[in-house]
Amino acid sequence: MIAALDQTDPVALAQALIGCPSITPATGAVFDCLEAMLLPLGFTVERFLDGDPANGGPVENLLAMRRRGDGPHFAFAGHLDVVPPGEGWASDAFAPEVRGELLYGRGAVDMKGSIGAFVAAVARSEAVSGTISLLITGDEEGDAVHGTRALMGHMADRGVRPDLCLVGEPTSVNRLGDMIKIGRRGSVNMWITVPGVQGHVAYPHLAKNPISPLVRIMAAIEAITLDEGTDWFQPSNIELTDVHVGNPATNVIPGKATARLSIRFNDLHRGADLAARVRAIVEAEGGTLEAKISGEAFLTPPGAFSALISAAIAAETGLTPELSTTGGTSDARFLCALCPVVEFGLVNATMHKLDEAVALADLERLTRIYERILSSVATAS
Amino acid sequence: MIAALDQTDPVALAQALIGCPSITPATGAVFDCLEAMLLPLGFTVERFLDGDPANGGPVENLLAMRRRGDGPHFAFAGHLDVVPPGEGWASDAFAPEVRGELLYGRGAVDMKGSIGAFVAAVARSEAVSGTISLLITGDEEGDAVHGTRALMGHMADRGVRPDLCLVGEPTSVNRLGDMIKIGRRGSVNMWITVPGVQGHVAYPHLAKNPISPLVRIMAAIEAITLDEGTDWFQPSNIELTDVHVGNPATNVIPGKATARLSIRFNDLHRGADLAARVRAIVEAEGGTLEAKISGEAFLTPPGAFSALISAAIAAETGLTPELSTTGGTSDARFLCALCPVVEFGLVNATMHKLDEAVALADLERLTRIYERILSSVATAS
Ligand SMILES: [Zn+2]
Ligand SMILES: [Zn+2]
Repeated sequence: MIAALDQTDPVALAQALIGCPSITPATGAVFDCLEAMLLPLGFTVERFLDGDPANGGPVENLLAMRRRGDGPHFAFAGHLDVVPPGEGWASDAFAPEVRGELLYGRGAVDMKGSIGAFVAAVARSEAVSGTISLLITGDEEGDAVHGTRALMGHMADRGVRPDLCLVGEPTSVNRLGDMIKIGRRGSVNMWITVPGVQGHVAYPHLAKNPISPLVRIMAAIEAITLDEGTDWFQPSNIELTDVHVGNPATNVIPGKATARLSIRFNDLHRGADLAARVRAIVEAEGGTLEAKISGEAFLTPPGAFSALISAAIAAETGLTPELSTTGGTSDARFLCALCPVVEFGLVNATMHKLDEAVALADLERLTRIYERILSSVATAS
Repeated sequence: MIAALDQTDPVALAQALIGCPSITPATGAVFDCLEAMLLPLGFTVERFLDGDPANGGPVENLLAMRRRGDGPHFAFAGHLDVVPPGEGWASDAFAPEVRGELLYGRGAVDMKGSIGAFVAAVARSEAVSGTISLLITGDEEGDAVHGTRALMGHMADRGVRPDLCLVGEPTSVNRLGDMIKIGRRGSVNMWITVPGVQGHVAYPHLAKNPISPLVRIMAAIEAITLDEGTDWFQPSNIELTDVHVGNPATNVIPGKATARLSIRFNDLHRGADLAARVRAIVEAEGGTLEAKISGEAFLTPPGAFSALISAAIAAETGLTPELSTTGGTSDARFLCALCPVVEFGLVNATMHKLDEAVALADLERLTRIYERILSSVATAS
């Protein structure tokens, strides 16, 4: 089956990958499938597992590299895991099906389709020199603990460091090529706990109401303006996402009050600094704070790399992509520590939804854009 | 059994009442027992039920009256229902037992003991002229919907209105007679709901976080100073008693936020005015408010009635009672609509607790104080 694949046909490659169920965290068959595509193209493939069932694993990771001459090292990063399909698909989510001009299946756009397109682009780029690598993980849709970070550790051990990295997430909104991501906001969640002394509302002097300091804390947090945004980022934003006291008795002053907040922040901030700032407010009122940083903000300032990608997109589609930093987090938040990172992939309208689908024409167009990018990178060196 | 009771012995009368289990709402046997005590003393006894199981009833109420000449109408108000005994008593909560100098049993101080003392006081006061009544309910410890308020309706129907009313609640703190209540604060609970629009924290412009207006509402409420207290009341007090959002997802802006508060207020305020004041704050932020007034504040300003009671206490105990308005609510909040009301009864240290107990000597002393009050009221007229 695999041996009969046309390595230059992104639809066939995407179908093969979609046909391997790989709900996050992913291991095994879907990686076998990708490896079988890459070996004939001259790649060296390394695969390893990280984590165990007790902590969200195991997760498979794959590092594929092909070196041809002294050109720059260009990395394509992505994930083979997918979110659960849910009930109600018109066809089996893991039995890829072409209906009309669309290919249906879980992962069609997020992001087996773009992996297929990249492999096809490489297969069509035999003449391109330099190093090409694929950094593919199995837990981008999960906790992302045992995926890209473990892969980066593996690369560090081997002294592998790309010069440029393209993440193939589905960044297009309405038409292929209308948006690329040059950064992402960071994300941190915080949990506030304020202790009090329980008592009867008729005898408040014998109690200590924790809601009063919590209200002052929340009012102080609501009053914070983190920034006004930057040239490339919208303003950082704080949202109180939960408040919980859990006191069913109308005549009782509660003994504890808690709240939770979420900050999405741009590259003017670091998660730890934000936590320290909020912690100071909380501790001044006798409370405690726990913070969990999901990811720092990153920005690849507009420059040669984004211009190269925009040019490739414009040549194939006629569109000038918006350089965006909106939306949630991606593994680019880790990869940005290595080199300039830009994200570009398919149209995300159906990602994570029922009947996820990619236009056949988009798979071909994306392949050609990736081809142009590979060629431009090699030429620019 | 009942026929053999010594009507002048408060211990025997209290034991008889404690021996009739009467967890709130109370009906039946315990009222039979009291009626049997009162009939030989010349009282006319009317009993009726109010409410049904679907709304917290049935609750029994008893109105006993004895008229002798043209003196003032003095009413003694109280309740025969008790709170559940709970587990862990040294003896059966409904089998009154004298151990040492104490009589143990549920209701010993709250307030079958004081009802026994009052009946004994009446039995010893054959020479006293005027009208004496007992206003006894079966749901003071419950919702108080079908008790004193129903009894007052019954009295209004018959044109019965006392000139003075003594509520026999256990007001003494450390020693019998150290405190009487000349008023009680009012109580109102309020429930605040603020609607929002649920959404993802990464896209706050598509959502509307209800916690932000709720924080402003709570901060405004916390900033309220209702008053500085009066000669007889401590300052009115607002406590936020609960906040609830119920949003488990760290990356979701919730669609609704709620809070609850309790106000204990003095006689400078009315419950409805307080509700209107808080409602204006809540509605200005797009929220809604529900208020439930448990009772209005009342005050029987220090005067002839409290002086008469204080004098009776001083004569028997040597103590000058504190005239207090502290603590929770009592049925005096309803009775104050009829006439001056003062509360005085046993030591409340064990009320609502395991091994509730009254000192035998206190029952005799309280009987003598009640005797002096009956005599003074008749003389003062
Ligand atoms: Zn993805
Ligand atoms: Zn009571």
